[in-house]
Amino acid sequence: MSVAVITYDRGMSRWEPDARGRLERAAMELFVERGFEQATVTEIAQRAGLTQRTFFRHFADKREVLFAGSAALQEFMVSAVASAPEDAAPIDAVAAALEGAAGVLQERREYSRRRMAVIAANPELQERELIKLARLASAIAAALRERGVPDPAASLAAEAGTTVFRIGIDRWHSEAVQRPLLDVIRDSLDDLKAVAAGT
Amino acid sequence: MSVAVITYDRGMSRWEPDARGRLERAAMELFVERGFEQATVTEIAQRAGLTQRTFFRHFADKREVLFAGSAALQEFMVSAVASAPEDAAPIDAVAAALEGAAGVLQERREYSRRRMAVIAANPELQERELIKLARLASAIAAALRERGVPDPAASLAAEAGTTVFRIGIDRWHSEAVQRPLLDVIRDSLDDLKAVAAGT
Repeated sequence: MSVAVITYDRGMSRWEPDARGRLERAAMELFVERGFEQATVTEIAQRAGLTQRTFFRHFADKREVLFAGSAALQEFMVSAVASAPEDAAPIDAVAAALEGAAGVLQERREYSRRRMAVIAANPELQERELIKLARLASAIAAALRERGVPDPAASLAAEAGTTVFRIGIDRWHSEAVQRPLLDVIRDSLDDLKAVAAGT
Repeated sequence: MSVAVITYDRGMSRWEPDARGRLERAAMELFVERGFEQATVTEIAQRAGLTQRTFFRHFADKREVLFAGSAALQEFMVSAVASAPEDAAPIDAVAAALEGAAGVLQERREYSRRRMAVIAANPELQERELIKLARLASAIAAALRERGVPDPAASLAAEAGTTVFRIGIDRWHSEAVQRPLLDVIRDSLDDLKAVAAGT
């Protein structure tokens, strides 16, 4: 009896096992198959076996499926900068944030690769991605200033780090031999250091 | 008689002395006084003592007054990268482009400062500026690849250079003691090198 009640409650309640993950996967499949513009929220919910209403409990619109993780990633990177050793150089505090983010993203390579392909095919999404990265750089620069790093060093380290992050992720997606994102980002940071040194 | 005819011709023809510059100055005054959203093309033309029709011969819309120079600047910087000494390191080829651009912009400090203030007050213009800078970085990266610089070095040098350019211009606008843009950009590039070296 109590079991039946629990089942009934679940069916009627807002609880859906991994609804968010199912919606993300369904959305990405549809974006890849039919293009971002063509896919509708109705189809995404249907493909995930969920209602439109459940979709809107998790995402404001279909674009947000692609950008909902940005705020959490930014928060994570900002706190990594804040908690880097006190005597770390600005670029090393930023490197700690990039390495932490690499650990988080590592499990989602296929999702991340598809996401970038969808964004690359749509100018409006490219703009949104640019804005996201500009905000990330501003937030990291602010975290460096909190550590007592003056400008322009704070802005330069944050911008350079964000560039390394973006270029590192592109390489990670496209390299023929798959390597951990952490290694690719460390290589990209070394490449930046070499470029800046004029070699 | 011939003088009268010439005057008449000028009045009726498309020739207006420095129409473009007058429209730019009038637009900037109105953007600063009333805000970008509020200023209209009719008012801009009126303030410049010209017709709306003349405005639209020079600019597609009021936003283009702020971005019309971008394409020429990008072309200029790309050709500076292309014509840097063959054995110049990627970052030095980019530095040559930044230094050339500094020479071009030097004469327009007040215009440039006002332009950035108008952009800073409007999110849509900020996005447009981000897109412009992303295009500039892509174009410089392509010019470096043309010189045989492989990726990711080409992208990293181009992105780092664009960051130095943007941050250098911000400093140039805001420093209490006015210095030539060239000096400020060279300092910013040195700051980037120091940041990347972990100092």
